[in-house]
Amino acid sequence: MKPYAAPLDDIFFILNHVAGAPSLGEYDAELTQEIAGHFAAFAEGEIAPLDEAGDRIGAQLQNGRVVMPEGFKAAYDAYVEQGWQGLTAPEDFGGQGLGALNMAVTSEILSGANHSFQMVVGLVPGAIRTILNFGTEAQKAAYIPPLTDGSTLATMCLTEPGAGSDLARVRCRAVPTDTGYAITGEKIFISGGDQDLSDKVLHLVLARTSDNGIKGLSLFLCRSEKADGTRNAVTVTRIEEKMGLHASPTCQLAFDGAEAELIGQEGKGLMAMFTLMNHARADVALQGVAHASRAYDVASNYAKDRVQGRKDDGSPAKLTDHADVRRMLDEIDAIALGGRAMAHLSFVTMEGESNPALLEFLTPVAKVYCTDGGMTAAELGVQVLGGYGFLQEYRLEQTYRDVRITAIYEGANGIHARMLVTRLLPGPEAEAFAAFLAAEAPEGIATLWDDTRKSVLVQSDATPLAHDFMQLTIECLLLALWTRIVAQAENHPDPERIRRVGTMALKRGAIRAKTAALFVTEVADAA
Amino acid sequence: MKPYAAPLDDIFFILNHVAGAPSLGEYDAELTQEIAGHFAAFAEGEIAPLDEAGDRIGAQLQNGRVVMPEGFKAAYDAYVEQGWQGLTAPEDFGGQGLGALNMAVTSEILSGANHSFQMVVGLVPGAIRTILNFGTEAQKAAYIPPLTDGSTLATMCLTEPGAGSDLARVRCRAVPTDTGYAITGEKIFISGGDQDLSDKVLHLVLARTSDNGIKGLSLFLCRSEKADGTRNAVTVTRIEEKMGLHASPTCQLAFDGAEAELIGQEGKGLMAMFTLMNHARADVALQGVAHASRAYDVASNYAKDRVQGRKDDGSPAKLTDHADVRRMLDEIDAIALGGRAMAHLSFVTMEGESNPALLEFLTPVAKVYCTDGGMTAAELGVQVLGGYGFLQEYRLEQTYRDVRITAIYEGANGIHARMLVTRLLPGPEAEAFAAFLAAEAPEGIATLWDDTRKSVLVQSDATPLAHDFMQLTIECLLLALWTRIVAQAENHPDPERIRRVGTMALKRGAIRAKTAALFVTEVADAA
Repeated sequence: MKPYAAPLDDIFFILNHVAGAPSLGEYDAELTQEIAGHFAAFAEGEIAPLDEAGDRIGAQLQNGRVVMPEGFKAAYDAYVEQGWQGLTAPEDFGGQGLGALNMAVTSEILSGANHSFQMVVGLVPGAIRTILNFGTEAQKAAYIPPLTDGSTLATMCLTEPGAGSDLARVRCRAVPTDTGYAITGEKIFISGGDQDLSDKVLHLVLARTSDNGIKGLSLFLCRSEKADGTRNAVTVTRIEEKMGLHASPTCQLAFDGAEAELIGQEGKGLMAMFTLMNHARADVALQGVAHASRAYDVASNYAKDRVQGRKDDGSPAKLTDHADVRRMLDEIDAIALGGRAMAHLSFVTMEGESNPALLEFLTPVAKVYCTDGGMTAAELGVQVLGGYGFLQEYRLEQTYRDVRITAIYEGANGIHARMLVTRLLPGPEAEAFAAFLAAEAPEGIATLWDDTRKSVLVQSDATPLAHDFMQLTIECLLLALWTRIVAQAENHPDPERIRRVGTMALKRGAIRAKTAALFVTEVADAA
Repeated sequence: MKPYAAPLDDIFFILNHVAGAPSLGEYDAELTQEIAGHFAAFAEGEIAPLDEAGDRIGAQLQNGRVVMPEGFKAAYDAYVEQGWQGLTAPEDFGGQGLGALNMAVTSEILSGANHSFQMVVGLVPGAIRTILNFGTEAQKAAYIPPLTDGSTLATMCLTEPGAGSDLARVRCRAVPTDTGYAITGEKIFISGGDQDLSDKVLHLVLARTSDNGIKGLSLFLCRSEKADGTRNAVTVTRIEEKMGLHASPTCQLAFDGAEAELIGQEGKGLMAMFTLMNHARADVALQGVAHASRAYDVASNYAKDRVQGRKDDGSPAKLTDHADVRRMLDEIDAIALGGRAMAHLSFVTMEGESNPALLEFLTPVAKVYCTDGGMTAAELGVQVLGGYGFLQEYRLEQTYRDVRITAIYEGANGIHARMLVTRLLPGPEAEAFAAFLAAEAPEGIATLWDDTRKSVLVQSDATPLAHDFMQLTIECLLLALWTRIVAQAENHPDPERIRRVGTMALKRGAIRAKTAALFVTEVADAA
């Protein structure tokens, strides 16, 4: 069995015909597809085969340094050698200068091939963007080229013990020195906090420069090696034992007066960090899509060959002859396609730059749907395989474990839902979304959403309604997207499949949307 | 952290005040509670602490024999010594002769403490019942005492490669010999197929005595040792590498002319096996409940201590101060309580013996709801803990992995749903359920269910509606059970909690039931 097959047909159907990438002037569909073909071949042939052993062996902490599973270093060297790490970085700094939508494609493929590998290398594009947006010219020149040439990998150091989703509690402290700053404190849950793939690590560290809550936070660039080549005072004190993503080292880091440079202004750290976080969130949505898509690939291939029971005429049946198996496969397929449409719509809106309010609204919705959907898809995929789904052999159980974290990290899904109802719903972001629904959703859906929104806005505390309102929003957005998908079915190599899954998604989605709206109003009534 | 705390208050609230155990003449509430208290202390103190290492080390195949993780043998010896293995077996055969409802309590507690341990020892009561129902007096005398005294453990040998849910494909063959039968063939997915806890293993083997499809199947008693004390021709050829339940050895067994005795009549093997399977199914429902209940215990204790964010007045908040966390905790709680009510109702109906049609109907519904619910509860529990839920440290990730198989084994949930619409819906079983709803469910629910049933019955092929109709049935049954639960809240030590969770469950359940009915009719329309 091929460990991973990149769903290129589905990806480009969604990107080109549903998410509207060709409407962007600089988008070159042909070039993007050609690049994706090369990347898919590389990811399938050299990165995906490492995923199983990576899970079994895991990253190890030895003598204070992280050792990656065998094969990861060679794969990383090839990845860098072929220029993938600098794909969308500016040419001036050693990158390929390609459009950001290429990343929407390669990032999903990389996550599908090997989520752990993607975790370790995947923060670099966001780090580059952060330095481009907030760094000085000297910082850009110093820090970006080692990221594009692969000699340095990046981390995002936010979380501390007791300060997970609540950054006002950050205690890590940065004090000025003759040459810059010295950082002291502890960070936890740092993906790729150390590894043996790149020579160096660049930590983007949120640290406190004053006691003014989140306004006392600043962002720092902190290298694993000092300018003189000796180790900086950053040490890995442990790596976590996790349910999945065993080849992604989740590090606890101790900063002990580590040399660092301020990026951006003092007290504006959170704003600068958001650039990196938004990149990471878009990637997380694609991780969910990648897992759903792989679950569909594995389960549908298994089901069409596996003999199970008999048909009405007594002849041997395949699993796909059973209605409930077809139902499950179509549902997995719908999650992968609908989730990808949502994620790609966000990317295209981001690159289009003409509707930032809509982008703000779509980002948390896509994060929640794609990650919850990835979990559901993995669960259904395991169910299709029956007892074999529970075995390590078919590797859907790894998907089931690996995808679980996506609903938690980069903002737990409940926090995104809360943000939706408290911060976005009263503002222009919700207006932008309402306009989108009015233009694109089936009849009655825009009104349903808007009426329900109004019932949320009058609440003195909307947080108990957050989950249900997020579900309503997801269903309404999906109805708009599936309308596009079904209308474009002829542009997919298998229009029959797209129409079947789409018809079901529209029918069920309409019922689900009404149900979600009822949940919101019932909860509001109870409040 | 205590690895497991048996939810005795919840268990006896449901058993005594919701499921109606006291209506059974032979049920002694006080004695059952006393026994449960002793068992809970033993399970919490001696069996639960082995669960974590059991997961890490797993059962191992060494030189053709299964070696259980350290500590399991001593725990099993104590378990046997205290008489738990023969709790409900007749005193004539060395058992304690206690009522079957004791098992509903101890089985859940054992699964919550250590699901793998329960898997290995848990088939014995069903095996005893099978021998009592179908064995000769000589077989009862020969086979039951070693099961009650713990020197022998039992297995259920059904599945073969290519014959999972389709027993007509069983190829294992039994041929008559001078002294009995000789079995030859291969069985897979045999839980506890070997272990080093008991001296011997008694395999209950479904094997073919003629080529007449399922009518050619007979049931056999096949000991791991022959009468002369030498090893019988049954060997473990592999144990499976699984996502969870690592301490439960899932064996592939090769029978190579193994000596065996027929139990019951030739060609009636499936009927005899159903006794064992129905026991196993009832246990599986309780496994789902046990995991949900443990998820609630771990997550609610974590959430009430964990500082996260701030309240409106700026003071530090706990996780439980966040509406979405409370929503998740209540949902987990509702699954555990509602699932237990469903499982206990089945047990009480079974012991009451006055409504076998209702029992037939409830068994698959409880199996599906409790196992799907167990998965949902584990998923939500992990979410409440956030990043810590993904770590091995808090052991909810083990719950998440271990519970996953319950929706698959003992009949995949989709197969139970199909059976519901094809076999039970046109018969007296559905009538019995309709009568139950008419007497117990909130207004309109019995009619909703019955109208939807009619729309299913007119279909030429009801299988595409199976999943949605099962969901509708679950929601309607839950509405009836929650009505009882809320009415009895004062009998729980924490009536406030019961009422809060119950009010939400009734409100959401009513909406869910209508939605499920809509799904059924929409799918029917599309057919």
